Formats: sequence, structure tokens, C-alpha cells
Amino acid sequence: MAKQKPRTLSGFMELLPQRQVQFDRMVELLRRSYSLYGFTPLDTPVIEASEVLLAKAGGETEKQIYRFLKGDTDLSLRFDLTVPLAKYVALHYGDLSFPFRRFQIGKVYRGERAQRGRFREFYQADIDIIGDGKLDIVNEAEIPSIIYQTFTSLGLKRFQIRVNNRKILNGFYAMLGLTEKSGDIMRTVDKLEKIGPEKVAALLTGEDIGITGEQAQEILKFIAIQGDNDQVLTALEGYRGRHELFDQGLDELTCVVKYLSAFGVPQTHFAVDLTIARGLDYYTGTVYETTMLDHPEIGSICSGGRYDNLAEYYTDKQLPGVGISIGLTRLFFVLEDQGYLNEEMVTAPADVLILPMTEDLAPAISLASQLRQCGVRAQLYTEQKKFKAKLSYADKLNIPFAVFLGEDEIQAGTATVKNLTMANDFSQEELERMAQEGIHKQITLPTQEAVAYLQQQIAQRVEDTPIWDKVDIALRYDLEAPKKNEL
Amino acid sequence: MAKQKPRTLSGFMELLPQRQVQFDRMVELLRRSYSLYGFTPLDTPVIEASEVLLAKAGGETEKQIYRFLKGDTDLSLRFDLTVPLAKYVALHYGDLSFPFRRFQIGKVYRGERAQRGRFREFYQADIDIIGDGKLDIVNEAEIPSIIYQTFTSLGLKRFQIRVNNRKILNGFYAMLGLTEKSGDIMRTVDKLEKIGPEKVAALLTGEDIGITGEQAQEILKFIAIQGDNDQVLTALEGYRGRHELFDQGLDELTCVVKYLSAFGVPQTHFAVDLTIARGLDYYTGTVYETTMLDHPEIGSICSGGRYDNLAEYYTDKQLPGVGISIGLTRLFFVLEDQGYLNEEMVTAPADVLILPMTEDLAPAISLASQLRQCGVRAQLYTEQKKFKAKLSYADKLNIPFAVFLGEDEIQAGTATVKNLTMANDFSQEELERMAQEGIHKQITLPTQEAVAYLQQQIAQRVEDTPIWDKVDIALRYDLEAPKKNEL
Repeated sequence: MAKQKPRTLSGFMELLPQRQVQFDRMVELLRRSYSLYGFTPLDTPVIEASEVLLAKAGGETEKQIYRFLKGDTDLSLRFDLTVPLAKYVALHYGDLSFPFRRFQIGKVYRGERAQRGRFREFYQADIDIIGDGKLDIVNEAEIPSIIYQTFTSLGLKRFQIRVNNRKILNGFYAMLGLTEKSGDIMRTVDKLEKIGPEKVAALLTGEDIGITGEQAQEILKFIAIQGDNDQVLTALEGYRGRHELFDQGLDELTCVVKYLSAFGVPQTHFAVDLTIARGLDYYTGTVYETTMLDHPEIGSICSGGRYDNLAEYYTDKQLPGVGISIGLTRLFFVLEDQGYLNEEMVTAPADVLILPMTEDLAPAISLASQLRQCGVRAQLYTEQKKFKAKLSYADKLNIPFAVFLGEDEIQAGTATVKNLTMANDFSQEELERMAQEGIHKQITLPTQEAVAYLQQQIAQRVEDTPIWDKVDIALRYDLEAPKKNEL
Repeated sequence: MAKQKPRTLSGFMELLPQRQVQFDRMVELLRRSYSLYGFTPLDTPVIEASEVLLAKAGGETEKQIYRFLKGDTDLSLRFDLTVPLAKYVALHYGDLSFPFRRFQIGKVYRGERAQRGRFREFYQADIDIIGDGKLDIVNEAEIPSIIYQTFTSLGLKRFQIRVNNRKILNGFYAMLGLTEKSGDIMRTVDKLEKIGPEKVAALLTGEDIGITGEQAQEILKFIAIQGDNDQVLTALEGYRGRHELFDQGLDELTCVVKYLSAFGVPQTHFAVDLTIARGLDYYTGTVYETTMLDHPEIGSICSGGRYDNLAEYYTDKQLPGVGISIGLTRLFFVLEDQGYLNEEMVTAPADVLILPMTEDLAPAISLASQLRQCGVRAQLYTEQKKFKAKLSYADKLNIPFAVFLGEDEIQAGTATVKNLTMANDFSQEELERMAQEGIHKQITLPTQEAVAYLQQQIAQRVEDTPIWDKVDIALRYDLEAPKKNEL
């Protein structure tokens, strides 16, 4: 028969089993972290009616959309989780309680140009808090603490959450009489790190934007405000009283910073940064970006902000909210690429491989059932292979324990447990010393005790984080830890 | 602004928060159950190249496929998880260890005619064990035990796993010299329950199929073999020695039945049923269906079987396997429809709602952080609402505890915990008696103790199953339990 060459489309991530376990652990930890803050899980369709999904979209986004007809129906695949949330809240408004806190972790689709590390199908992990008419500022202060706890629970250490407030930016440009040009100005100022202040000034005063040199200097001076959070806030106080919107933004930012230590976010992981603007139009208050300190070139790994009107395309209800999004697939790619994935994380599909040595499998099957009832992940290996091949199977899958059940064991009602993670070159004396501490390379026990022993061995295992930050790697291998911005 | 009416496409399930929590719990329990048996999680793209995905497909399936062009690329949405598995195993063959045990829970797409309870986007939850060249029969015996443990862990009680073996069927038809007509015959025999034996015989001897009356009687007699598993196997022994394939199938079926009690599957939940054939061509050995005893009209809620060649369209490798699939979205719909969802399951997004009563929120924020560190899901409620509205919010979301932090509490370093699940009409005497047993309608404690108290209250909560079988409901409300096939 002619064969079709199997392949996976470029831009679509498909992981090998070990990596998939790590990815899934990330998702599980995200779910757990979001749940601790009172967010409820949501799942919406991947396919929506185009006129619903694209009620707002336009420009670059619309070109990337997977859109097609099925029969007469014009369908599109979702390109983010925000528009489906807006639809959901507008559609189910009467059934929801506000503030409505939801998280959603799901696949979205963008037909971007194929490029290394860019994906056309990727997971987003979003949280949003939606108010009905109003939403208290404290929610904006809580978001960085969620980001902090979430990344920390994944094992990431050297990251920083950067915060700004759009009202400060918009108020500042209003002070200068530049409200209408503020969009163009912010897009230009965004290039500061790349092209430097002189070129930014040149662009600002050039014919496209055309502000005065004095205004450009004011802007560069403002954007250059730096220091720790108190210093930045103090510098901003110098502008107070000149514009209402600015003052309101400064109050909000001050409030967010004030509550951060109560929320348990260390100063090291948090910075007021006036260069953060977030391109999207609908952010109206606090905005967030999160960067990896050792890899600023990666850009923000978690972004979001406050918006005033989530669902204006679907409803007259005023639904302000605040939310953040993690591009999980890209983050995972970057973490693997940069060596951040914990290669020692337990990714084996089973804790115990049971190797029956007799024709009658009933005792082995019964042992497997007992182990599973105790929460131990057990796999029976019954293929007709040589003994060595069976152990090599366990080895390849990193299964930590093997259990042998031969005639002798079955007669005696025992099981032989072998720890496959221990090296083979211990001396007899060393093995005896370890045995006194309850660590056995191989031990034969009455079946019930063998089950209890394995259960205890598995329970002792510390739950690994999927990410291993370079600090840990440095410590582990006794290398010099990264110095810059040491945490 | 003109509004776009928000809507969700028909045939696409979108759940309200409470139901979503129940659905997610089902998924979580499936993951846990599959993991105990050594299956590794997998995730493959929703979109595949059409020529890859449709290498095998044809007929009815192809018509239902969501297929479209993006640029010049011919794309299709997956319509099951088996074809992507075949592609995955063929593509990554060198990186996998066999037997390869994987589970996958993901959305698939079929543009079926819109109909109540039929979905165009739905979750499948699949497990498969793939061998390289060979696969031991014990795997076929293990599958029913996984089905049993899985549904039991979900809370379902009155279900039955029905098993047959295609070799027995094919061998039997070969005995009668009817191999070529066996497909038509099996499709006709499938109608037995609906139309009765006379009409089946008439169809079999009619001009379309055209077998003799004697052959038809032989078939009806064979299909009518009933009784407990031993009785059926004994009856089948009467046919032994007439055809090799039949004998092989009988050996396999006998082996599967033999190991079932070792695997812990009770006789009540398992039946050899010679009418089970499974339509698909690629099943070659044991086949499975699972039915709800009180709702046979729903049909099979978990089906699968043994196949000899998973990936023949992609590779020359012989990859036999055995697997089952649960149509999770439809199952969830049916369970809700028939009143099987546990309406008392905890679906609240938080365990504790913290209600600060002072302007400075730092103490409340700090308490929330402490609770979360102890694994208690805590939500701060800071909206400017009347006290009654705040409690009504907790009530609507079924949040079991509220914590009040007023000036008095903050001064004294205490917190007041209110149990929102307790009725309001207890007498003082009753409240005091309960308090002696550690149950408090409302209690003020030093903050640390309040945290420990809440942690303990939450930990005490029994983990609910998402399904509540009618047996439980009958017991609970003291109704007469279902009699038929009592378990």
C-alpha cells in the first residue's frame, strides 16, 4: 500500500511524551495558582460565527484569522481568549455574579508567518476580573501578586513585573497638548531601547509626528524617570496638579504599589516602568508586562491591564475589567530553548513496572490493582521479551521502581522491589548502611509490606517544578550564579 | 454603537461556571485514573494537513470534516484522536518506547446535522496501548478494568462493560462459509433488539443478503447465547474445533474473562455479549461497549477494541494496539439531562470570601495571602456594596465561609469567621452544643488560629464525585432504589 508521509504542520507544537508531561505540569500549576485566587475555570468553543468573533477585529488580526465556510456558515477560529470572554459575559450576563473572576487555558489560532518560536496554534492562559459597572482598584493591585505567585510556583525565579498606568501616560500627553498624537508618540518611544534617545527625538520632531524639540525633550525626560518604586513615584508627584487624568493615574499607581508588600510581592520582582504602554487601545488604567531578567530579548512573557469596556461590541452594559495573558506555548518553547526546563523532573508514565515471571499472571495483576488503589501508578509489563529488554524499557521511561514476581515470591507471598534509580557500583558495606536508613537497592517483602513500602517511597518524592531557573542550576553544579540584579 | 448580538454556534457546548467545574472535575478524574495505569498524556494539533489526516478517511466521515484552505494549504480539523495518534506514532516512532501507552483528552470536530445532544465540537477521552510488532493479550484484559475504575471514580455505579471478540464472530461466519457476507450479516443482526428475530431472519434470507434459512437459524441461535460469563463461554466451547480463528478468539475471550476478577472488576459490571461487533473495520480482536443499565437507549458510553495495524497508512511498521474512547461532551450532556450530575458537588470558585470593613485593606490582603499559602482558595471582596449584597454574592457562588475584618478585629489581631452553609434557625442551645463539637456558625479567633481553623474545615470536606448515580439519590431521599439488575 502506498504510504502517506506523516508530518505535523509547521507552527504547530507537538511534544514528545517527556516534554508533554512538563507542559501539562505547567498547566496544572497555573490552574492551581489561579484557583487559589478565586478564579473559576471556563471553556468556550474554538470555532465561533465570524460576525460574532470579528465584531471588533480589523487590520493585522483579521488577516491572520483562520476563517472558512462550512455549508453556508461563515466560521472563524478564535485568535485570543478575550473576545470569547466578552461574548460569554454578554451572552450569559444574567447567570453570572460580578465581579466575575474566570481563568481560561486554551488553544488559539493565528496564521502568522512561519518563524522559529512563533506558533500558529498556541495555548493562552488568561485570567480576568470583570466588574458590573464598577471595579475596585484593589483588583489591579492583586494582579501582580497573582503573576508573582504563579511564576514562582512554576519554578521561575529571576523575573520582574513591570507596571505602569495609562492614565499617567495619557494625562501627561494631555498636559503637553499632545493627546491626539499620543498614539504615534508612544509607538515611537517604544523604540527607545533599540535605537536610543537621539533617534527617538529625531523621529518625534520629524515630519510624520512633528512635535517641537521642547516637547520631545519633555517626553524623553519623563520616560527617563527611573529608580526604585518610591523614587519613581516621588518624581511623578512633581507633575501633580497639572491634569486631572494624570493625578488619578498617579493615585492608582500609588495604591497598587502600596498594597504590593501586603500581597507578598518582593520589591525585587516589581518595578514601576513608565515605558510600558501596551499597544492595545482598550487598556485604560494599570498595565503590566513581565520580563525574564536574564533574557530581556524575549520580551514580555505575561502582559495585560485594566480596561473599561470589555464587551461594548455586544452589549450596552458597562463591564470594566482587568486581566493578564500568558502565551504558554511560546513561553514553553523559550524555556526549553534557553535551558530552563527541569531535566530532572519526574516525567515517567508510571512509578512501578511490574515484571511477572510466571505463566499465571493473576498474582501480578492483583499486585498492580493493590498499588493503584494506594495511588501508586503501576504498569504491568507482560510482553514476551528478554529480561534485559524489560529493564531497558523501564530505564528508557525513567520508571523508578521494578517489582519482580517469580515462583518463589508467589509461593512465599512476597514481592521483590528494585530501585532503578540507584547506581550499580555501591559496595556491599555502603548498601548495608543505606539499608539501615530504609534505602534499598533491592528488597524482598511480604506483598502488603511491598505495597506500603512503594507507597511511602513514592509519597516521599518532592513535587518538582517544571522550570529550573539558572540560579538553581548554578547552585547545583557549583557554578557562579548570575550576578546582575541578584535576587 | 450598533451591537453585534452575542451567540454561541449550535452544536457547540458552552457551560455556565458551575457546570464547567463539574466537567473539569470529570476530566481531572479521567486523567488521574488513566495515570494510575501508566498512560502518558499526549496533545496533538487540532489542525492537520488534509492529505495526512484524510489518508484513510472516506464516506460519511469525510463529508463531516471541517476542511478549508489557508493560503495554499489544505487543512482539516481532526475528527477523532485515533488518526492523530497513528500519525504521531509513525512520525515519532524512533523516540517512543513500546508498548506505548498514551491518553489524550481533547476536542474533535464533526459537522454533523444539528440535533439535540449531538455536538459538532466535542471532547474525546482516549486511551491506547500500542505494541511494536506484537502486543500481549493481557492488555486486552486490562482495558475493562480501566473502564471500571474510571467510571467508578466518576461516581457512576449502574453500568456494564460488554465484551466480545471479533475473531469469534469472524470464525463463526467462516464456519458457515459466510465470510464475505459477514459484514452485511452483522449489520442486520445489530437490529435484533429493535426489530426482533423474525424480521432479522427475513432480512437475512431476503434477496439483498440471501443466505439459507438454516444458516439464518444458526446465526440467530448463536447470537441468542446468553447467561453469565461461564455459561456463555461453555456454550461457545460447543463450537470449538471447527475453525482456527474461532478457537483463537475463544482462547482470547476466555483469557480476558479469567483475569477480570484479578483486575478487580465485579461480575455485575461485566458481560460477554456476542451481539457486540463494533462497526469499524479495523477491530480484529476483543471489542468493548459500555452501557448505563438504567438508560440502555443512550447506547454505548465507552467503546473500543483491539486492532492489528494502527498506522498502516503512514508506515510499514506493524503497530497492533488496543484502545477505548469516551465521548465526553455527549456523556456530560446525557448525565445532566438524566439528572446524574451531583448538584451538591462543591463548585464554588473560592472557599473563603474575605470582607474588609476598614479603609486600609492591608490586613485583609495579608490574611488572603496567608490563606492561599495554606492552600485555601480565598477571594477578597472589595467592591463598594452594602453588606447584604456582599453576603448575597457569597451565597450565589456557594462560597462556604466569609471572614469579616473590622476595626475591632484588626485592633485585636483577630478575624471573624462565618460558616455560610449553616442554617439560620438554630437555637442558642443547639449552637452551643455544636460549638462543643468544633462546629461554629460564627467565631472570632486570633488571625493565625482563624487561618488554621479554615484550613482544617476545608481539608475535612470530602472530595465529591461529579456524578451521582440514581442509587445514591434513591438512598439519600429514601426512595425505592432501582430493582432491575440490582448491583
